[in-house]
Amino acid sequence: MIEKKTGRQTFQMQHPPSINATASIVGPKEGKGPLAGYFDQTVDDEFWGEKSWEKAESKFMREVLSKVIAKASLPMDALDFVIAGDLLNQCIAANFGIRESNVPFFGVYGACSTIGEAMQIGAMLIDGGFAFNVACLTSSHFCSAEKQFRFPLELGSQRPPTAQWTVTGSGGIILSAEGDGPYITRITTGKIVDMGIKDQNNMGAAMAPAAADTIFAHFQDTGLPHDYYDMVVTGDLGMVGKHILEDILSSNGIHIGSLLNDCGLMIYDMKQDVHAGGSGCGCAATVFAGYLHDRMKKGKLERILFVPTGALLSPTSVQQGETIPCIAHAVAIENSKGGTQ
Amino acid sequence: MIEKKTGRQTFQMQHPPSINATASIVGPKEGKGPLAGYFDQTVDDEFWGEKSWEKAESKFMREVLSKVIAKASLPMDALDFVIAGDLLNQCIAANFGIRESNVPFFGVYGACSTIGEAMQIGAMLIDGGFAFNVACLTSSHFCSAEKQFRFPLELGSQRPPTAQWTVTGSGGIILSAEGDGPYITRITTGKIVDMGIKDQNNMGAAMAPAAADTIFAHFQDTGLPHDYYDMVVTGDLGMVGKHILEDILSSNGIHIGSLLNDCGLMIYDMKQDVHAGGSGCGCAATVFAGYLHDRMKKGKLERILFVPTGALLSPTSVQQGETIPCIAHAVAIENSKGGTQ
Repeated sequence: MIEKKTGRQTFQMQHPPSINATASIVGPKEGKGPLAGYFDQTVDDEFWGEKSWEKAESKFMREVLSKVIAKASLPMDALDFVIAGDLLNQCIAANFGIRESNVPFFGVYGACSTIGEAMQIGAMLIDGGFAFNVACLTSSHFCSAEKQFRFPLELGSQRPPTAQWTVTGSGGIILSAEGDGPYITRITTGKIVDMGIKDQNNMGAAMAPAAADTIFAHFQDTGLPHDYYDMVVTGDLGMVGKHILEDILSSNGIHIGSLLNDCGLMIYDMKQDVHAGGSGCGCAATVFAGYLHDRMKKGKLERILFVPTGALLSPTSVQQGETIPCIAHAVAIENSKGGTQ
Repeated sequence: MIEKKTGRQTFQMQHPPSINATASIVGPKEGKGPLAGYFDQTVDDEFWGEKSWEKAESKFMREVLSKVIAKASLPMDALDFVIAGDLLNQCIAANFGIRESNVPFFGVYGACSTIGEAMQIGAMLIDGGFAFNVACLTSSHFCSAEKQFRFPLELGSQRPPTAQWTVTGSGGIILSAEGDGPYITRITTGKIVDMGIKDQNNMGAAMAPAAADTIFAHFQDTGLPHDYYDMVVTGDLGMVGKHILEDILSSNGIHIGSLLNDCGLMIYDMKQDVHAGGSGCGCAATVFAGYLHDRMKKGKLERILFVPTGALLSPTSVQQGETIPCIAHAVAIENSKGGTQ
């Protein structure tokens, strides 16, 4: 239940839901990156014993769900809802990954912003009194994504410098009505923004205006000082998109360059040949579930604005000459429940 | 906000959201069916002036959104959320259809159950105090669905008798915190049920157990008499699935054969050569937005249990030998707010 609506897009939670556990499982490349020590598990083989990459991606999600409820010390039937999504056609990683859970299920799709959408819906269902525990999960897989969105891996196609690398991994989060935090204190739901970018190999540039729109709305709606958060961390803008975001925010009077970070830039070392950075539904989800949550629990970060970003295109829309609609959802996460507004 | 949780899956709305307007636009075949007079608009050409079926499907959704807010006498910026989804890969009918709306957006995916999922989330956001007006929209298109899920239309492939016909159309619903009804009084969120059916040309059989599971949970959670509703209407089980549902319910002590109906059996005349009936995200959405809502407003139906059903497969999952996970979401809709529980 809300105390008040602060603006067109932002809600302050009256009873901020607590993030009671997170879990993350990543693939071999992510397990060699700078955040390796923060993930619960690294899988050495991208098939993970399955016969296809799609089945492996489902397994990532299934195993993350098992792991995250175990870390929250909950039985599966204590979950009121699972909210999950992924990039595969008809969201089969989620549908097959949580098939055996026997928990009421909402499938969501916001491309790489999906974990933000899931956390927002989950937070509102808890704050509204409809749920005590909600699991939010997303996944992506480099191989299944390349196969579906780009070229067969066997082709060894060259990629332009603006291209990003889809994270192989899944992140899961348990939101609960009670707990020790960190807490979701506010949310700003994104609108679709399409500035006319058509290059599917430059999704950072396409998504940056959507991220700027949501961050701008968040500060405008809440009136918070622009340096209120210790970090404003986008999902997967990568190198190119992050610079554009910084420029757009600056030219709109929000000078937070030093506080901006991006999960797509954190998960890999640039030496790993990932071009502009990481991407995929699993990018923001694993970086939050692995690294950011740990930093908050240890008090290294007290409050962050987590802004997963998504490019709502498909290969069909690209082939038909369409531009790339994008969206970003902002979730304020704080160690203290009573953040000023 | 809920008064109490009646069971694992069902919520009674404390302030039942009102369905303040509905709109529906259908294609030529649906416009020749028995419900023709109930739809707001019939389009003669499946391209609707666009260059592709996918662009036409987006246009269905865009036009339905325009129509439904006009019928609700609302400006676009009175909407707090749009919740929408469709069957196309990466949900592009929704993403492109509502791109210009400038309203906070949640994309959802529950295959043909999507309108039920959207109405449930929308109802909870309103009852929880997070929204005053929410638009719920879904679409499907026979041509874009055949092209994506089955065979090129030009092939003229034969279809088995258990196959269903994807509805070309879009339905939209405005849920509001205040209004004259009909009202969403209760919701039962579905769990994924997979009984091992592998035949993608027999989705009614695959979905029937999911529908039974949700309907059974609804009556068990609420304790309502089994004949409480004037109609229990599933989304798109078709002929085959409806018989199976009837059997499963009967063998579990719920004898409501005469009250059961299915949107997939209502939208076409069997003479229209649609085999087992209609299907698609647009099926339940247009039948509710067109026909059922009208019957309720005119008092011909006082209370219904609307149970959109979805088969959560993809061509990839079928090719990889997977069975078909299914889900059904139940939405109780009544002319009176104060339904007994």
